[in-house]
Amino acid sequence: MIVVIGGGPAGRIAAMRLAEAGREVRLVEKRAIGGQCLHDRCMVVCALADAARLVERSRRMHDLGIFDAAPRVSFPAMMTRMREIQTKLGTVLDVETRKADVEILYGAEGRLEGRTAYIDDEPAPAEAVVAATGSRTALPSIPGTDLPGVYTYETFRELPDLPARIAVIGGGTVGAEFARIFRAFGSEVHLIARSSLLKEIDGRFRTAVLRDLAGVAIHENARVLSIEGGGRVRSVEMQTANGDTGLAVDAVFLATGLAPRSELLQGIRKDPLGNVIVDDHMRTSVPGVYAAGDVIGPPYLTPVARREGVVAADNILGRDVAMDYATVPQALELGYEFASVSAPGDDGLALSSPAPAGPGSFWDVASGWTGMAEIRVDPATGRIVGAAAAAPGASLLISYLGFLMRRGITVEEFDTFAEIHPSTDGIYWLNRYAAELLRKERKEDL
Amino acid sequence: MIVVIGGGPAGRIAAMRLAEAGREVRLVEKRAIGGQCLHDRCMVVCALADAARLVERSRRMHDLGIFDAAPRVSFPAMMTRMREIQTKLGTVLDVETRKADVEILYGAEGRLEGRTAYIDDEPAPAEAVVAATGSRTALPSIPGTDLPGVYTYETFRELPDLPARIAVIGGGTVGAEFARIFRAFGSEVHLIARSSLLKEIDGRFRTAVLRDLAGVAIHENARVLSIEGGGRVRSVEMQTANGDTGLAVDAVFLATGLAPRSELLQGIRKDPLGNVIVDDHMRTSVPGVYAAGDVIGPPYLTPVARREGVVAADNILGRDVAMDYATVPQALELGYEFASVSAPGDDGLALSSPAPAGPGSFWDVASGWTGMAEIRVDPATGRIVGAAAAAPGASLLISYLGFLMRRGITVEEFDTFAEIHPSTDGIYWLNRYAAELLRKERKEDL
Repeated sequence: MIVVIGGGPAGRIAAMRLAEAGREVRLVEKRAIGGQCLHDRCMVVCALADAARLVERSRRMHDLGIFDAAPRVSFPAMMTRMREIQTKLGTVLDVETRKADVEILYGAEGRLEGRTAYIDDEPAPAEAVVAATGSRTALPSIPGTDLPGVYTYETFRELPDLPARIAVIGGGTVGAEFARIFRAFGSEVHLIARSSLLKEIDGRFRTAVLRDLAGVAIHENARVLSIEGGGRVRSVEMQTANGDTGLAVDAVFLATGLAPRSELLQGIRKDPLGNVIVDDHMRTSVPGVYAAGDVIGPPYLTPVARREGVVAADNILGRDVAMDYATVPQALELGYEFASVSAPGDDGLALSSPAPAGPGSFWDVASGWTGMAEIRVDPATGRIVGAAAAAPGASLLISYLGFLMRRGITVEEFDTFAEIHPSTDGIYWLNRYAAELLRKERKEDL
Repeated sequence: MIVVIGGGPAGRIAAMRLAEAGREVRLVEKRAIGGQCLHDRCMVVCALADAARLVERSRRMHDLGIFDAAPRVSFPAMMTRMREIQTKLGTVLDVETRKADVEILYGAEGRLEGRTAYIDDEPAPAEAVVAATGSRTALPSIPGTDLPGVYTYETFRELPDLPARIAVIGGGTVGAEFARIFRAFGSEVHLIARSSLLKEIDGRFRTAVLRDLAGVAIHENARVLSIEGGGRVRSVEMQTANGDTGLAVDAVFLATGLAPRSELLQGIRKDPLGNVIVDDHMRTSVPGVYAAGDVIGPPYLTPVARREGVVAADNILGRDVAMDYATVPQALELGYEFASVSAPGDDGLALSSPAPAGPGSFWDVASGWTGMAEIRVDPATGRIVGAAAAAPGASLLISYLGFLMRRGITVEEFDTFAEIHPSTDGIYWLNRYAAELLRKERKEDL
């Protein structure tokens, strides 16, 4: 018997991998399968971003005189339908997991004391344990976070209707995504970042991100002092370079980062933030106990969590597999998909261009903004060491490009890339152009 | 001096390639740069398919109670805006081409008599000639194709408003795409195929295509006898297995295939259909005269035409490059993008699955149809020899997959594929599953 605690991407995939290899597996899931990815995060952002895009594009088609009306969204209906779809997707995951011969214990609480797993306080003897208990929003230590009208990822589904004015606190990916979503639906949106907004993003890619956040009031280098209100949120008080100021709002969304759900995991080593410490085989400090997913800390990405689950399972199965965090693509869902990937290496040659108009962006030519593409190339080897794209479908192409980058692809090899036309992909053009530049440079060197 | 006749994808790219290598190039373009790809075909389908998707998705959101209204399309406004965007894109191409130092002769007629090119009937001495005069709709030899109300790719832009009832004649890609577009905008649509509709597509991929054509009246094995009408189209008369029948319609769209525009190319070898005959270096029967693009015949794809243009140019530059038609991806723009690619090899292991819900398809979960994915694998080598996908962004992922297939990728190597979640890509899951199957099979063989 192997006990897996947590039915999110990491735990579920680990459980299936183990069961498919013939092991008896008990998956303990207190709530619903699919974890926060399905219920609170990735799929929620996907749902809302899709609806927001439809609204915005319809509005643009209305502005162009092509559509007779611009649709307006019923927020309560959207939330109800979203939950219905999440339930449907949860059923698919449940069936798939049980078909793989995993026993799922719904509603049970799993916890750990060193080598021993407990299910609802009963010790559950296990050859191995996988702890995949996930994360939750890290609440900032300011007054007012418990006021009605303050939401996080976890409580967002309780938001009864679209707020007229909302403050999104947090300058990372999640903050930017939710700010844009609320803005697209018509709210007045304030996005508050402690330092710079999306500080890890730079150059033209950053300019493009900011372009997609048009209409959002961005407050950078702003320290939130408190959330104020009587029975309900009324304002956010903050300290900025221009002094203290208050923003009148009807709701607050806290996108203030994540913290591990590790309080029920005792007797294993954790870092000061509570993240479970593992090695590259997903082994914790206690032999036989593995951990995977958000509970071990960032990058908080579903594909990474899944992969960690696979690595944990494979090592339990004696396969000696190490986790590799290199060349993992990342994305941001705004008006377009914004996706990027980096590989180790010298990025001496950097090129960017507008993205060509294709499926999903043809009508955007009218506004002159069809997205963009960017590459960074190691001039000595011709290897692509960085790429970013903003366009419909950017996440798909960047995922494949990352896969090629991990395999050491050079720009010269893109000569024979055969695309489907029209395409929103500007990357392969940049690759060919870079190859041409490198050829000329090398000739001049002779 | 090198003379290039035709400013479509093949001619324009050939001209730029030659100019960038320092050659003096004169590009003769009778109409506007960008060819039929920009003005009559690819970009028109892209524009209309994008608008059709927006309308359909908004309608579905309205059905779900999320949108307060489903927008209706003003067809004349859409056509006007589309032409504006085409003009804008044409300007981009014009600037890009001239920046590469190509001299463009607009409004001039280029023709060929053996080794000699003529520009407006003046001989134009040239070291080499590239003939890239493209194609046009092949009119079927039936009465009535000249009636007002009968349209082709070339005259579609003259359609004044959405017809209440339309017959699309032609069972290929173009017929299917236009049938669905008209249906999405609200026309009653008849799609007439001489034999089977899309006969080169089979299996579950075909079922998926037909699903996206729901609402279109499909008439297979139907021979059109005539298009009838007095001052205007009134009906299409056809012979079917059930006897002769007439369809009352207000318009007809002829998607009856393409024929080369080669009548002004004299003194070079052509096949009985008029396609210019070339070798894999794009050389015609006359030394120094090259041809590229639709004028040499199928597959009539812009990326192939561009590549042929590059190959022609490179051989003129003495680089000895051969054209390779293997692993060229193809697509169909319906409700989703339908894309597929094949490589040579034994396809003994075939797998398919529904596509996961992701950007562009989340709300489609409500209807239970989020697209699909399919792979064919050579069991002996593990190499992917075929793939197809129906989903938002399918064309992007299939292009990259085709690139990987040409490089001999195996399903086992997909173990470390890192996607961006959520993703509409079902292919990498199938690849991993196939790898697992092959591993088991091989173990059993031992």
